[in-house]
Amino acid sequence: MTALTPRRGVSPASDTPRSDTSAVRATGLRAAFRSVRAHTDALAAPLSPEDQVVQSMPDASPTKWHRAHTTWFFEQFLLEPHAPGYRLFDERLAYLYNSYYVAAGPRHARPKRGLITRPDAATVAAYRAHVDAAVDALLADEASLAPEVAAIVEIGLNHEQQHQELILTDILHAFSENPIAPAYDPEWRFRPASRAPGAVALPEGIHTIGHQGDGFSYDNEGPAHRALVGPVEIDRGLVTNGDWLAFINDGGYDDAALWLSDGFAAVQQEGWRAPGHWRQEDGRWHVVTLGGLVPVDPDAPVCHVSYYEADAFARYAGRHLPSEQEWEVAARSGELADAFGVVWQWTRSAYSPYPGFRAAEGALGEYNGKFMINQMVLRGSSLATPPGHARTTYRNFFPPSARWQFTGLRLATFPT
Amino acid sequence: MTALTPRRGVSPASDTPRSDTSAVRATGLRAAFRSVRAHTDALAAPLSPEDQVVQSMPDASPTKWHRAHTTWFFEQFLLEPHAPGYRLFDERLAYLYNSYYVAAGPRHARPKRGLITRPDAATVAAYRAHVDAAVDALLADEASLAPEVAAIVEIGLNHEQQHQELILTDILHAFSENPIAPAYDPEWRFRPASRAPGAVALPEGIHTIGHQGDGFSYDNEGPAHRALVGPVEIDRGLVTNGDWLAFINDGGYDDAALWLSDGFAAVQQEGWRAPGHWRQEDGRWHVVTLGGLVPVDPDAPVCHVSYYEADAFARYAGRHLPSEQEWEVAARSGELADAFGVVWQWTRSAYSPYPGFRAAEGALGEYNGKFMINQMVLRGSSLATPPGHARTTYRNFFPPSARWQFTGLRLATFPT
Amino acid sequence: MTALTPRRGVSPASDTPRSDTSAVRATGLRAAFRSVRAHTDALAAPLSPEDQVVQSMPDASPTKWHRAHTTWFFEQFLLEPHAPGYRLFDERLAYLYNSYYVAAGPRHARPKRGLITRPDAATVAAYRAHVDAAVDALLADEASLAPEVAAIVEIGLNHEQQHQELILTDILHAFSENPIAPAYDPEWRFRPASRAPGAVALPEGIHTIGHQGDGFSYDNEGPAHRALVGPVEIDRGLVTNGDWLAFINDGGYDDAALWLSDGFAAVQQEGWRAPGHWRQEDGRWHVVTLGGLVPVDPDAPVCHVSYYEADAFARYAGRHLPSEQEWEVAARSGELADAFGVVWQWTRSAYSPYPGFRAAEGALGEYNGKFMINQMVLRGSSLATPPGHARTTYRNFFPPSARWQFTGLRLATFPT
Amino acid sequence: MTALTPRRGVSPASDTPRSDTSAVRATGLRAAFRSVRAHTDALAAPLSPEDQVVQSMPDASPTKWHRAHTTWFFEQFLLEPHAPGYRLFDERLAYLYNSYYVAAGPRHARPKRGLITRPDAATVAAYRAHVDAAVDALLADEASLAPEVAAIVEIGLNHEQQHQELILTDILHAFSENPIAPAYDPEWRFRPASRAPGAVALPEGIHTIGHQGDGFSYDNEGPAHRALVGPVEIDRGLVTNGDWLAFINDGGYDDAALWLSDGFAAVQQEGWRAPGHWRQEDGRWHVVTLGGLVPVDPDAPVCHVSYYEADAFARYAGRHLPSEQEWEVAARSGELADAFGVVWQWTRSAYSPYPGFRAAEGALGEYNGKFMINQMVLRGSSLATPPGHARTTYRNFFPPSARWQFTGLRLATFPT
Repeated sequence: MTALTPRRGVSPASDTPRSDTSAVRATGLRAAFRSVRAHTDALAAPLSPEDQVVQSMPDASPTKWHRAHTTWFFEQFLLEPHAPGYRLFDERLAYLYNSYYVAAGPRHARPKRGLITRPDAATVAAYRAHVDAAVDALLADEASLAPEVAAIVEIGLNHEQQHQELILTDILHAFSENPIAPAYDPEWRFRPASRAPGAVALPEGIHTIGHQGDGFSYDNEGPAHRALVGPVEIDRGLVTNGDWLAFINDGGYDDAALWLSDGFAAVQQEGWRAPGHWRQEDGRWHVVTLGGLVPVDPDAPVCHVSYYEADAFARYAGRHLPSEQEWEVAARSGELADAFGVVWQWTRSAYSPYPGFRAAEGALGEYNGKFMINQMVLRGSSLATPPGHARTTYRNFFPPSARWQFTGLRLATFPT
Repeated sequence: MTALTPRRGVSPASDTPRSDTSAVRATGLRAAFRSVRAHTDALAAPLSPEDQVVQSMPDASPTKWHRAHTTWFFEQFLLEPHAPGYRLFDERLAYLYNSYYVAAGPRHARPKRGLITRPDAATVAAYRAHVDAAVDALLADEASLAPEVAAIVEIGLNHEQQHQELILTDILHAFSENPIAPAYDPEWRFRPASRAPGAVALPEGIHTIGHQGDGFSYDNEGPAHRALVGPVEIDRGLVTNGDWLAFINDGGYDDAALWLSDGFAAVQQEGWRAPGHWRQEDGRWHVVTLGGLVPVDPDAPVCHVSYYEADAFARYAGRHLPSEQEWEVAARSGELADAFGVVWQWTRSAYSPYPGFRAAEGALGEYNGKFMINQMVLRGSSLATPPGHARTTYRNFFPPSARWQFTGLRLATFPT
Repeated sequence: MTALTPRRGVSPASDTPRSDTSAVRATGLRAAFRSVRAHTDALAAPLSPEDQVVQSMPDASPTKWHRAHTTWFFEQFLLEPHAPGYRLFDERLAYLYNSYYVAAGPRHARPKRGLITRPDAATVAAYRAHVDAAVDALLADEASLAPEVAAIVEIGLNHEQQHQELILTDILHAFSENPIAPAYDPEWRFRPASRAPGAVALPEGIHTIGHQGDGFSYDNEGPAHRALVGPVEIDRGLVTNGDWLAFINDGGYDDAALWLSDGFAAVQQEGWRAPGHWRQEDGRWHVVTLGGLVPVDPDAPVCHVSYYEADAFARYAGRHLPSEQEWEVAARSGELADAFGVVWQWTRSAYSPYPGFRAAEGALGEYNGKFMINQMVLRGSSLATPPGHARTTYRNFFPPSARWQFTGLRLATFPT
Repeated sequence: MTALTPRRGVSPASDTPRSDTSAVRATGLRAAFRSVRAHTDALAAPLSPEDQVVQSMPDASPTKWHRAHTTWFFEQFLLEPHAPGYRLFDERLAYLYNSYYVAAGPRHARPKRGLITRPDAATVAAYRAHVDAAVDALLADEASLAPEVAAIVEIGLNHEQQHQELILTDILHAFSENPIAPAYDPEWRFRPASRAPGAVALPEGIHTIGHQGDGFSYDNEGPAHRALVGPVEIDRGLVTNGDWLAFINDGGYDDAALWLSDGFAAVQQEGWRAPGHWRQEDGRWHVVTLGGLVPVDPDAPVCHVSYYEADAFARYAGRHLPSEQEWEVAARSGELADAFGVVWQWTRSAYSPYPGFRAAEGALGEYNGKFMINQMVLRGSSLATPPGHARTTYRNFFPPSARWQFTGLRLATFPT
């Protein structure tokens, strides 16, 4: 089945993965629906209404918006067309909580999402409850669901999982702009890396790239196609903060020769001296995390680096970034450590359509295809990605300057 | 006594007035302090924490910021230097809630005030209570207060009253950016104009302009000086929405010949077709007010017009705007209707220092003088100005493009 | 006679003076026409076609444009309506060389004037000759000229003299942007100041401000009106480079307390450390002049300072800038040194209409009135102003950030 | 041999090709040098000094700059290090005419190249003659030239040929901004397309991509590597103006569903309604060409389209753009019509390093590698590309919004 993921205007999100298709199949759609929806509420729970209303930059969205938008998605694409007698909660919400679906009608301007103090957080909670009840009723007799309706539910759940990750990355960005650096969860700690030694060696070979089979995937993962990959060697371990501190101390941010031309322009314009969310206090590097401001741990994987920085670091190290095809083949081999669940990993591949790719018709076809320009592919998943949402063919993508996601890198070598 | 008012970075506010000096004298400083502080809380009461955190443009500030900043003012300028043993509520707040007092130390960037979700509204309420208690104690024995300390209290109260007006104008702007146009107070109605007929005729004469005597005033109201004023005739009534609708319907916004060059550039760049907060719905003009979206009342004074619009309207009408000196003399005569409490009235006077003006030394000297450029003077006061805060010598000022205050106009004629 | 001066889009020019009305009357219109036109050609003579095509910023114009635009002015306003049988040189030029006269039709975008390599300089010379011949013929029988036609000629000559000054200021700006700092005329030297000591004391008195009598003046110099001026004392001498070096060395550009808020923002954004066209070379201040790069002469009047800088300097010196009315009365007294012919002198007066001012109808009415906002008045004239073009009532005006004209200052004191 | 090409700051140019290595070998380096240098002068000959000084946008450069910069290249990289006793023509020119070689020292700001009226065109001609004489002397005894010195000459000639193409594209852009649309050469006509029917079918196969052998190539054409290409069918003919008019008339520029998200944003922001340099006059489409303004020829290949437009057109046509690898294999087959000498052809490939690519050390290593982001690859060559400068492995690249080069497209189909 081909499915489609919502991507956001300027800089699409890492929001995509699947809600563990096996789980869906094991527990049924209604149980999966309840589980995913409850997880969103759990993620928002530590945040006050004040926290939930703020938008710290055009690329980020308020928590309240994420909560309402994911709800609107079910209302717009599932309930309105497929739930007879369904009554809209409030018709004005379609305007406020549409993201970028041109075909679904006009939208509130993206950079002004932070101005919507009303409807308030309690109203959005009521909106969620209203829609949840209607979906629950629709899914009561799962066996009789039309396959295309079940497919929409599955997409909606994947869509919501993407926004679950964004809830975390976006509030972290907002908190990082606050001089007092609040903690989302004071107990939160960054997951350490495995620091697996060595590299996975891929000899030249023809491999199938992209998604096959009947599990869920996004449209940008297909068509599956054959490609020649290798020879290349890909590090099993991720680049760490310790590695990055050496880069900083060696003057990496000052040496134009290490950088792409656009990258060095970004360094100068943005004043980058370290990864995103880092601050120097008392002569030592700290980082704003979901657990608040903490000293940088040299053993943890580096995070919040842009593609420009990842590329410069690879050049500094005399290495390369892997292509997305190389990454996919290596990950599929099972020998690649920390492929999932730590940091998204920049590849050297621009985000382009696979041969013969064609976006689907209709509003849901606006998901991925129209963002296939000016962005780079990331593979794997991060600590903020919901469990079960990752797979080897998954393609995440961001502009080369983006730093507010949980983004890191691993290195590769080409045998000569 | 010379006193000084805080003005804000880009576009100083109409925040200035005096807290009814006679009231201060009658009831005493402590009673006045309690009254003004309570009024701020009353103004914020209809707003949720979500409402209070949002900043809809760099020129506006969040309600929570206004509440905290006015409190910081007493802490910084009154308690720290003059209350022995006072303990700061939280030293980080000085950074967050300083507005533009360079001499008082570094500040949080003005356009990012809307990102401060924490400290939350409850913490700011506690901050207010903490400072209120300390000031209350300081003022217990009013008779023994040093005059310069009493002067700081008086400035602080005037300062807070300015921010009371801004609380209303800024939240109105935020709500006007919300497609659903929430109401601050559903019962709120615009005050009708007196529609007084005729004009006040001022023959040529030498008058003293500026503040004299021992009541409170801001530094920009002095030095008092003599000026030749008149002959001129100033309308007793304000320009109304009905007048403005005629201007719109006559193509006023399309006729470059009516506009200052910079004004017409603003019309084109901003897409102005009507006063601020106006929206056309169902073929009829409505306006977002503190009471929500209501039809434009043709009998009410026009409001939310920029200087550019006021100037173009005067040209369209074959009339002129009065100068601030003409306005002051006319208002002093007592024959001028709606001088106070309806809308601030644009004058044709640029905001300049009076002859021999010199700003005071120290942080409180940063109030008015440094904004004497690129702004126009408004006289009178608006419906949002706290009672007792207005006087005939009061000088409000905004850039010629500002529209989010309660700003209107009256017209004048020069006899030929 | 009321007349009107062309002002330029964003930042009107110091283009102002009259073409010596007495000379016009003495020698006749045709002789004056020939003389003024020849002077423009003489000014352009040291410049190559390459020099003449370049536009160094939107506020400046190419020499070739000035030469063609002044010619277009006579063609558009004099020959087309008043010279029977006149044939346009090339109708496409009206589009290219209209400046900002909305009523005269559409115009080429101001910031793109530097892209017009063709028509080339030789064609523009031919255009000038074509128009000169037709005007010359029209003026052959001067006695029979209708007064309104003679008035247009007079305006056109004043207009061209304004552009003569701009030819010099604009090419100086272009050369100042060139790392090799070419000289317009290697022999050129800045005129030294008289360094007259003392001050002109003006006691309080009622004076008539603005132009009276039958000589030529611009519309913004009227209506003449009575005003109360003084008491004030105005320095007879101008502020010098030596004075300014002391300001620089005392940290004047770093001390926010000396500056208007907008002024300090300009200092920081533009990186101002000294007046315009100054460069530090080999540890010493130099300045790009029409004679090339030369060391700063401490005895010469300071030049190329913005209003912001003039205002900050006055505050630094514990002094004030005079108002335009004070300047006018002092200049009329004949005791004021260096009033004309050295540098334009910033006043503390915003550029506003005189009481009862009304712009004339028609395209020529677009001259001055529509620029009466966001600008400050300068009085006097500069070394680049054509002889005979200055008078005591003349009002020049520029935005407070402008530095590329020959702008300086003198100081005043208010007796206390 | 690995060689490196100069690319320009924001949007590198189509300037690259080789100066016909076979010709170099046949005639010798000195003859090739004389020939290439003479061709540059011939291209500049129809342009006046005024034409040559202008810079119409930051991405374009003045003709005079191209003439001087290519000369500086030989002085900087060939004569200074390898010609004993060579005397610089004028040391200030290194600052003015360095393009973006950070390692070669500071440079004049790119967007201000149009302000350099002096040195004048004649001086630049003298500069060229000075350098030509020195190079000529150096090449007199070609047999004894060190291979690395010969390599620098060869790079310099290729570099100059790139700028030859830019001389034409940049002056065309400048002329297109001129309302009177001057002609570079009134006799110039666009080369018609072959309109070859049918498609080249490529079955799946492993091919070597990139440059092999000992002829000249740029560093970005290697390392040569194996890739799986096909199955795909690539049209032998180019898309024509007639095809494009159908796209326009079908509302192609208004249909968001056809466009990449960034592409439609460009359409709206730039107001694109047709390819670059097109103007509607008298209800019919015309285009500014090197021969002046002419009616659009429906049989000619479409030109001056951005990648965004090419991509939207392909989607509109239900087709795809070929990848650069597909293009290279098809071109190598010899069956591809109009591969060279008409228009550069957008591919769907982002400009990325080939596997294992590593930029060379030193200033000449700044050529291509640092631009491998945010750009798309074009293949082939255009009518403005110097003869002999093209080859099948050549990679040109521009940002997806660029339209001022001679850029068109051909379409492909994936068999299903």
